Amino acid sequence: MSTTVELFSAPAAEQDLAVVNLRELEDRAAKVLQTGPFGYISGGSGDEITLRENVEAFDDYRIVPRYLTGLDEPDISTEIFGTKVAAPIFCPPMAAHGLAHITAELGSSHGWGEANCPYTMATLSNTLIEHIATAHPAGPKWFQLYFAKDKGLNAELLQRAKAAGATAIVFAVDLERPGNREADMKNDFHFPSILKFPNIPGALAGESLGEIMKLFKHGLDWDDVTFVREASGLPVIVKGLLSPHDAKMAIEYGASAIGVSNHGGRQLDNVPGAIVALPLITDVVQGRVPIFLDGGVRRGVHVLEALALGASAVGVGRPTLYSLALGGWLGVHDMIEHLKQEFALAMKLSGAARVKDIHAGMLVPQTTSIRFRQS
Amino acid sequence: MSTTVELFSAPAAEQDLAVVNLRELEDRAAKVLQTGPFGYISGGSGDEITLRENVEAFDDYRIVPRYLTGLDEPDISTEIFGTKVAAPIFCPPMAAHGLAHITAELGSSHGWGEANCPYTMATLSNTLIEHIATAHPAGPKWFQLYFAKDKGLNAELLQRAKAAGATAIVFAVDLERPGNREADMKNDFHFPSILKFPNIPGALAGESLGEIMKLFKHGLDWDDVTFVREASGLPVIVKGLLSPHDAKMAIEYGASAIGVSNHGGRQLDNVPGAIVALPLITDVVQGRVPIFLDGGVRRGVHVLEALALGASAVGVGRPTLYSLALGGWLGVHDMIEHLKQEFALAMKLSGAARVKDIHAGMLVPQTTSIRFRQS
Amino acid sequence: MSTTVELFSAPAAEQDLAVVNLRELEDRAAKVLQTGPFGYISGGSGDEITLRENVEAFDDYRIVPRYLTGLDEPDISTEIFGTKVAAPIFCPPMAAHGLAHITAELGSSHGWGEANCPYTMATLSNTLIEHIATAHPAGPKWFQLYFAKDKGLNAELLQRAKAAGATAIVFAVDLERPGNREADMKNDFHFPSILKFPNIPGALAGESLGEIMKLFKHGLDWDDVTFVREASGLPVIVKGLLSPHDAKMAIEYGASAIGVSNHGGRQLDNVPGAIVALPLITDVVQGRVPIFLDGGVRRGVHVLEALALGASAVGVGRPTLYSLALGGWLGVHDMIEHLKQEFALAMKLSGAARVKDIHAGMLVPQTTSIRFRQS
Amino acid sequence: MSTTVELFSAPAAEQDLAVVNLRELEDRAAKVLQTGPFGYISGGSGDEITLRENVEAFDDYRIVPRYLTGLDEPDISTEIFGTKVAAPIFCPPMAAHGLAHITAELGSSHGWGEANCPYTMATLSNTLIEHIATAHPAGPKWFQLYFAKDKGLNAELLQRAKAAGATAIVFAVDLERPGNREADMKNDFHFPSILKFPNIPGALAGESLGEIMKLFKHGLDWDDVTFVREASGLPVIVKGLLSPHDAKMAIEYGASAIGVSNHGGRQLDNVPGAIVALPLITDVVQGRVPIFLDGGVRRGVHVLEALALGASAVGVGRPTLYSLALGGWLGVHDMIEHLKQEFALAMKLSGAARVKDIHAGMLVPQTTSIRFRQS
Repeated sequence: MSTTVELFSAPAAEQDLAVVNLRELEDRAAKVLQTGPFGYISGGSGDEITLRENVEAFDDYRIVPRYLTGLDEPDISTEIFGTKVAAPIFCPPMAAHGLAHITAELGSSHGWGEANCPYTMATLSNTLIEHIATAHPAGPKWFQLYFAKDKGLNAELLQRAKAAGATAIVFAVDLERPGNREADMKNDFHFPSILKFPNIPGALAGESLGEIMKLFKHGLDWDDVTFVREASGLPVIVKGLLSPHDAKMAIEYGASAIGVSNHGGRQLDNVPGAIVALPLITDVVQGRVPIFLDGGVRRGVHVLEALALGASAVGVGRPTLYSLALGGWLGVHDMIEHLKQEFALAMKLSGAARVKDIHAGMLVPQTTSIRFRQS
Repeated sequence: MSTTVELFSAPAAEQDLAVVNLRELEDRAAKVLQTGPFGYISGGSGDEITLRENVEAFDDYRIVPRYLTGLDEPDISTEIFGTKVAAPIFCPPMAAHGLAHITAELGSSHGWGEANCPYTMATLSNTLIEHIATAHPAGPKWFQLYFAKDKGLNAELLQRAKAAGATAIVFAVDLERPGNREADMKNDFHFPSILKFPNIPGALAGESLGEIMKLFKHGLDWDDVTFVREASGLPVIVKGLLSPHDAKMAIEYGASAIGVSNHGGRQLDNVPGAIVALPLITDVVQGRVPIFLDGGVRRGVHVLEALALGASAVGVGRPTLYSLALGGWLGVHDMIEHLKQEFALAMKLSGAARVKDIHAGMLVPQTTSIRFRQS
Repeated sequence: MSTTVELFSAPAAEQDLAVVNLRELEDRAAKVLQTGPFGYISGGSGDEITLRENVEAFDDYRIVPRYLTGLDEPDISTEIFGTKVAAPIFCPPMAAHGLAHITAELGSSHGWGEANCPYTMATLSNTLIEHIATAHPAGPKWFQLYFAKDKGLNAELLQRAKAAGATAIVFAVDLERPGNREADMKNDFHFPSILKFPNIPGALAGESLGEIMKLFKHGLDWDDVTFVREASGLPVIVKGLLSPHDAKMAIEYGASAIGVSNHGGRQLDNVPGAIVALPLITDVVQGRVPIFLDGGVRRGVHVLEALALGASAVGVGRPTLYSLALGGWLGVHDMIEHLKQEFALAMKLSGAARVKDIHAGMLVPQTTSIRFRQS
Repeated sequence: MSTTVELFSAPAAEQDLAVVNLRELEDRAAKVLQTGPFGYISGGSGDEITLRENVEAFDDYRIVPRYLTGLDEPDISTEIFGTKVAAPIFCPPMAAHGLAHITAELGSSHGWGEANCPYTMATLSNTLIEHIATAHPAGPKWFQLYFAKDKGLNAELLQRAKAAGATAIVFAVDLERPGNREADMKNDFHFPSILKFPNIPGALAGESLGEIMKLFKHGLDWDDVTFVREASGLPVIVKGLLSPHDAKMAIEYGASAIGVSNHGGRQLDNVPGAIVALPLITDVVQGRVPIFLDGGVRRGVHVLEALALGASAVGVGRPTLYSLALGGWLGVHDMIEHLKQEFALAMKLSGAARVKDIHAGMLVPQTTSIRFRQS
């Protein structure tokens, strides 16, 4: 095991990627990443049913475009928590960007910052929060919290993040224990010892995710949401929810937003794809708080669909790490700009002039016509 | 890039094709066309979901035939805008037939004319409208307009088309900007400089579609339909619609027909297949104007299905260019005659004596029996 | 073409086949049959959607077995038109068994006769009706009529068949013109000139099916059913129906049975699979006459399903020709006995003691449980 | 045939397996088992539709997890017939474990006993009941009865089992005759003569299952349930039921539990997968007796789904024999412990603290969101 750790090295290229689409980045990244890190990043849990459904379920809908609306160029910018951002796209929290590139979170945050879109700094970063924040010249920064057993540490982390410029807290509630990730089992994956987790004391290098998670509280409850809210004084996004019940509870406990997510299909397998869960959450939230979705977004039309079904913005996770591996911050930036272009084209061609014009009536289930005729 | 352009050459064969079915033409054409042109012609946008659904969704229905009706030979002829044509089949507008064959639009129009079926002359032809018209000895000719920024140019084009014999205008409203066509991105496809677009001033050779489209108006609106109608004095088919709302609007603005189309799956991906969108359009049009459909028609049974679901005639696009590439006007003619035969056989074997006898009651959704038994 | 014809030879083996299942016979037969004959026998029309649906749609149902019913050995025998037969299985009409084996219809009828199941003598046999009849020692014999343009010939054929022992007439109404069979087009298939059609004058050898069908009436109507009934004085099975409307009409015109069939997926493609059409026919027939189904039956559970959905017996077509090709009458007999065993086992394991105990309540749609829970 | 029998040898390894998932055990076991035994163990009947549906239909549901419930470690233990067991998982009856490993049932029962989960001793064991019982140090032991023609033998077997410690009788009612198992036909599979069936007199070695089953009663009826109940004085699980009707009858005849099973897809093919049949059984049982399910369970999430749909515990059949083949009792134990871990993780990540907290509301059909939006 230590042998594997010693041999770890991360890509270092800094370049544009000539991105044709976000899907292809996975195969390209597989060629520059080592087996263990690639398995950790790309893999899901169990039979990877949720991993696949995250992407594929976007195709369960069809977009019904409108023409002759007088629309020339759509405006893809939007406001999140009162701040204007370039597009309804953000970087969700992911651990250990150092697996993907030597610049680690400095690269990914720089890329997202240049694109003027929100970036989430993660508890399990390989870079100090304060350094990540400085690499991100523009766009809102959020901080994702894994809730430590030591409450004082939580308060300290929240205050450090706020001081570093975080404007919202992403409270990830779905990973007290890692899911059943077979790639990691087969690769006996441990974080390379060269990679540190400088934001938390005690997370030794060379450990597995399961070992690291022992530092964090098991048995989280709704009062912990209150704690995060009060200890940070910032809007709290409760992230990882898939059930309407939990969405209602989150609002009751003061959440400022709901994060619909299945952790990229990495926690419990056989849960609904994010886009599948979304409309049920939208129904109960009824516009009281924004909803953010991550999971499976690879296309401009996916962004449009998620917004039509009630999301305010969508996270783009794995493509961030793949583009980081392939081209550093330039790669990340290239990926985001490509997605922005696809999204702008989807708005243009479907007849949506502004982000807020995107609505559920633009979608029909894939098989509408036949079903309609039957009834 | 200029190298690629210099090396361009188009097929020149003139021959019958012994067509067994229209599907196989794509593979055959792939062998005689260069990579860039073949990619441009065959490709769709994005994940090509709509491209595939165009063809595959025809199989979501089953035809319920009737026998012992006393029918000997069906009559496949029909009337379109008061003119009798050999079959409810037409050539939809497509740019740059010069990519497929040295005779370009002269070949395709000749083939369709010999078959006595409507042919659409396109704004982005490689041949002058007047020359295309003369190569088409019989059958109605229509003219497809991309709406130029210069309104005078539009009026001039419409009058030239009318003078050349066009009896209807196809106003294509779904391509102000080209869709996300990855084959063209990968091939860095530009129209070969040897191919001219003689009907429009300023469309330089050697450009990409995106560059060319800058000559045309972005931000089209419904008043432009009125302009086209008044400037041409001809029936206007508003083409590229997929939403019931737009179909209603088109009728309100004086359209003489609706063109249900997703531009061959080349504009916004993830929109409904043409045959999927059709019945919803039929429901709102309620017989006030004819509906034309293009997208995915490869079989005589497809023609029958589209008519059963409300279309008056169907366009056959890519097979025109494939058969043109393989055999010039003789190839095109061969393809159309084969499709006519398949359609005649479909009418014969399903018990429809005349085109107007084809009705929705001939179809059932694929899984009817099981669903019926459940309720 | 004549070269091909001269080279024709048919298999001559007479042997047991050690049948494991009827599906595998196609691959085995492909090895002993020439390309043209195999293509003619195995092929369907168009995209072969109906050909595949015939077999696959049986899997849209699930059988719900009952246990502890006291059933030891089920009785698979049944009565058809008042005659006891060994099983609700029959040989449907098929042309030109001489393509499959040198014994032609003598082999197939002998095999079915030994199995004591009904056999249909076809108009387009390569053997005289009278000879076929003598090779079939037991079990009812039926005669299938293609309706000649010459009404006198029809009357003569019906009387010859009756004299030879036919107890019912199968009036095939779905093939005035052959379907769009691509294998035959690709193989330029003509019946080998060595094979004669001795029951009809004027059907020259070496012709295609399309040429032969010119001898028969196009434009059949319901009065022709009356003619067949009166000219034969026998029960008439109107075969090839898929629509409830036609089933009702057939009963009105005095049919003694309905033959639900799509001609083995060889006529109009994209029509419903036989087992898909069956329940709709059953609903309108309401038990007034028996229903026979052919198309896709390959398993004992398929027989059980068809009976549960309203059929009185099922035809087994291609497997007859495949087993004939592989083993002559012994092969045919072996195939039938295997199917009987599978059917007996299906009855035993589902708890049906007698054929008449099989009923619709034994089946559920494949996805019942989920759908039930939704409502 | 005798040649094959002489050459039989079973694996003998005793080792941990480093199980990553239960699915992969089949491929691994295929490498250590001979063709005939592997075909017998792995094969299903007919087209193996039910065999596949057993596993695949678990994916027709999605689990909707709840978070922030305060749950730290879930308790996966449960009570069955008043006895606490480590998990709601048991070994269902399977014949001839000697095919898989030289320790035969001694190995499998030892593994399950160490895991403290119920084990079912089978009539067709290769080991005496009394010996199997001693190898199983903990956890309930059940005895599966095939009902002999000789009623006295049944009574004797039941009393021996009870004396050996059996606390319940599994009355298997679905195999009077074996299903249509093609692997066994193709391999001409007979039990190797070296393997004895010491619990029943007269079952000679070297026979096929069909021959052996002639010792047992054909034509079982509901009174036989009464006999088993009275002759054993133990709770009776009527196993092999798929219809709500039979479940009701079983309760009426005094069954203490229902065993939902299709015999691993080995009896009648095209019957519903076990998890498909389960909710319909649950509906009629209405909690009056526990329901046990076997068929297709390969994942911790499958266990959770079955319990959510009404099962009290689930059997894990083939993986027992595969792990036995690969590692003897250590392998079996390893397999069970892995499944326990997956199940514990599924409970943890879905928010179920105790087995009895698992309920139907945790599941939705796979496509819920789209269907909801349509209505």
